Amino acid sequence: MTKRYYSYQEFLADTHALTQKIHWEFDAIVAIARGGMSLAQLLGEYYNLRSVYTINTIGYEGSQKLEGVEVFNLPNLAGATRVLIVDDIVDSGDTLGAVLRVLTEAYPQICFRSASLFYKQSANRLPDWYVQEAGSDWIEFFWSEDMIRKPDFSYNDYN
Amino acid sequence: MTKRYYSYQEFLADTHALTQKIHWEFDAIVAIARGGMSLAQLLGEYYNLRSVYTINTIGYEGSQKLEGVEVFNLPNLAGATRVLIVDDIVDSGDTLGAVLRVLTEAYPQICFRSASLFYKQSANRLPDWYVQEAGSDWIEFFWSEDMIRKPDFSYNDYN
Repeated sequence: MTKRYYSYQEFLADTHALTQKIHWEFDAIVAIARGGMSLAQLLGEYYNLRSVYTINTIGYEGSQKLEGVEVFNLPNLAGATRVLIVDDIVDSGDTLGAVLRVLTEAYPQICFRSASLFYKQSANRLPDWYVQEAGSDWIEFFWSEDMIRKPDFSYNDYN
Repeated sequence: MTKRYYSYQEFLADTHALTQKIHWEFDAIVAIARGGMSLAQLLGEYYNLRSVYTINTIGYEGSQKLEGVEVFNLPNLAGATRVLIVDDIVDSGDTLGAVLRVLTEAYPQICFRSASLFYKQSANRLPDWYVQEAGSDWIEFFWSEDMIRKPDFSYNDYN
């Protein structure tokens, strides 16, 4: 599998591209942690929404492949009507599917839609909006790479 | 008040500097949303911690200045023993103080400590670890600026 580095600047361009695709008003954002957290922060600022939350998941392999994702730390969405769920990548689609299922059960009156930076065509569920197809590449996101790639942090290098 | 732009690259250097100051092991990170979300994501990756959560606050001015910050969406911290609370900036200290108070009440057995990128000397409570003093500057963080500063997003500009 080819590793592909995904920089902050590319993330910024893609996050902007995402906003150009989302022709839908929403009153809250739920990031799937950890992957969607930076995306949610930038989108929250962009849309001037303070209702930015996270939700946690743990994937596990059961003896049967029935319930492979545990979803916890549901945010309180009372008062919200339309909620955007965001993640960095929709890979198998299992995580997004489980989050949508749990949130829709908890808040049947809310309309949920979803967005991600990357998706895989093999996913069993696609987000409503996305930017790039990941292909067979392994995406090395800046938030997991930059802290270990550049051991010599000095301000002069960056300003 | 002087506006000071705070870039992703400076954030990256400061986040690394923060890890050099925190000589303390912890098993979960709680970001104060929205400000601490990107920081929490990078720290979670750096420390290889999947237990990365957020908590929400709303500041309001009451008739008396007794309860100025409402804290909600407490994450489930059962099983955690030492938890790092992170935010972008500790300004008055009211938000951090309220979060610490509510979390300590809910989880009296957990040891909480806190870290931020910026602090103000006038804060009534400082985080345990921080990187920069904000002085009198208004910090314009990249997550609120970059999406509106650079309207022409093309990959060529960034790669």
